[in-house]
Amino acid sequence: MTPDERIQELGLILPEPIQLPPNLEMKFSWLRVSGNRVFISGHIALNADGSVSEVTGKVGGEVTIEQGYEAARQTGLAILSSLKREFGTLNNITAWLRAFGMVNVAPGFVQTPPVINGFSDLIIDVFGPEIGNHSRSAVGMAELPFGAPVEIEAEVEISL
Amino acid sequence: MTPDERIQELGLILPEPIQLPPNLEMKFSWLRVSGNRVFISGHIALNADGSVSEVTGKVGGEVTIEQGYEAARQTGLAILSSLKREFGTLNNITAWLRAFGMVNVAPGFVQTPPVINGFSDLIIDVFGPEIGNHSRSAVGMAELPFGAPVEIEAEVEISL
Amino acid sequence: MTPDERIQELGLILPEPIQLPPNLEMKFSWLRVSGNRVFISGHIALNADGSVSEVTGKVGGEVTIEQGYEAARQTGLAILSSLKREFGTLNNITAWLRAFGMVNVAPGFVQTPPVINGFSDLIIDVFGPEIGNHSRSAVGMAELPFGAPVEIEAEVEISL
Repeated sequence: MTPDERIQELGLILPEPIQLPPNLEMKFSWLRVSGNRVFISGHIALNADGSVSEVTGKVGGEVTIEQGYEAARQTGLAILSSLKREFGTLNNITAWLRAFGMVNVAPGFVQTPPVINGFSDLIIDVFGPEIGNHSRSAVGMAELPFGAPVEIEAEVEISL
Repeated sequence: MTPDERIQELGLILPEPIQLPPNLEMKFSWLRVSGNRVFISGHIALNADGSVSEVTGKVGGEVTIEQGYEAARQTGLAILSSLKREFGTLNNITAWLRAFGMVNVAPGFVQTPPVINGFSDLIIDVFGPEIGNHSRSAVGMAELPFGAPVEIEAEVEISL
Repeated sequence: MTPDERIQELGLILPEPIQLPPNLEMKFSWLRVSGNRVFISGHIALNADGSVSEVTGKVGGEVTIEQGYEAARQTGLAILSSLKREFGTLNNITAWLRAFGMVNVAPGFVQTPPVINGFSDLIIDVFGPEIGNHSRSAVGMAELPFGAPVEIEAEVEISL
C-alpha cells in the first residue's frame, strides 16, 4: 500500500494551509526543495480548516502529556499536508531523514520523547518502518510561536 | 543585479570577524563546506568592528521586538560576512535552504516569527525571492551565548 | 593514525547502547543513513554500560561548567559508539559537518560554548582538525530528556 492509500485507509485528514493572523507575514517557505532534498520549516498543530489549534501552552503545565502527543501527531499531519500540496502525492518520499521535535515545556517537564512519539508513530504508520525511519531529537523549549505546545522541523528525501 | 552589487547598493556593512573574549576558544568553524553544501554555525549580531553587539538580553524583556528584529538582521549580516570571507563573493550562492532562528525569550514571549523576519527580510532583499527563499523555524530559547537576543544557524548551497 | 587507532591510543571507552527505562519506546533510529550522509539523533551522556549518566540537572545550577564539559565529551563518546556499531569502524567518516549542541541551562547561564567544547575537543582529538572540523551551535535549552545536562545532534559524511 502506498502512503497516499494509507492516508485514505486510516481516514486521516490533512489540514488546509495555515491561516495566519492578518498582521503576521511569513517571509519564508513551508518547504524548500533542492534536488532530492526537502527542508521542512517548523510546523505546528492545525485544525482541519488550517486555523491554529486551540490547544496551546506548556506541556507538563496546562497541556497534558496526552494532549502533547496529539499535538505532535497533528503537527505531523500539517507537515504531510504541506508535502502533499507541493508534490501532489506523498508517494515520492523515499526517506524521512531528520525530525527535530521541540516541546514547549513547563519547568521541570523532561518527558519530551513520549510527546514527540505522536509524530514518529504517525510517520511510521503512514510510510512504514523503512521509509518512515528517521533520526530525531525531542527537546524542551522556552517558548514556541503562538504558544504552540509542539513544533517540528524536518528533512525528507524524494525521488526525482 | 548580483548579491555583491546589491550589498553595495543597499550600503550594507558586513562586520569584521567576531572578536571573542581572550579566554574563550571556538573549537569549530563558522562555516563548514562539503561539496556544494555549506553548513553555517550559529551566528549572533556583531558591530562593524566584529565586537559582540551591546544589545543583549531577552526579547520581550529588556530587548524590544524592534531591537530583536534588528539583531536578527545584524545576525544575517554577520553570516553574509562569513560567507564573503570564505568565498570572496556572495554570487556563488545558488540557494538558501534552511534557517534555524533562535530567540532569547522572556517568559511568555511568543512573537518569535516577527523577530526572525529581520533575517529573512535581509536575505530576500539581497538574494531575491528565488535564491533567497528558505525553510525556517523561529523558536524561543532559554539562554543564548553572550546573552545575545538572537542566534541563527543556517545551510546554503553553492555552485562548484 | 586512523580514528579507530586513536580511540585505542587514548584509551577511550565507547559506551554500550543506551539502556532505556522499560516504559519508554524510542520510535526512531539513533542514526539515519542516506547515501554518504549520516544524520545523528540527539544523544546524551551514558555510562560505560549504557545506563544514563547520573549527572543530571542544569548547568550553572546543580551541574558545574566542568561537569557540563565532561557531559558533552561523554555525549560525543555515545555518538562515536553509535557510529562504530553501525559501520564497524570510524575510519569511514570523511567529514564532521554539523553539531547542534544543546545545554540544559539554569536561568542566566550563558557560557554554553565552553560546555560544548567538551564535544568539539573530543572530535578534533580523534579525527584531527581536517575531518573533525565542524560547524556548531551551542545554545541554552529549557529542559532536556532525562534531565540530561547536554544533548547533541549532528551530521557526518562517510565514504561509500
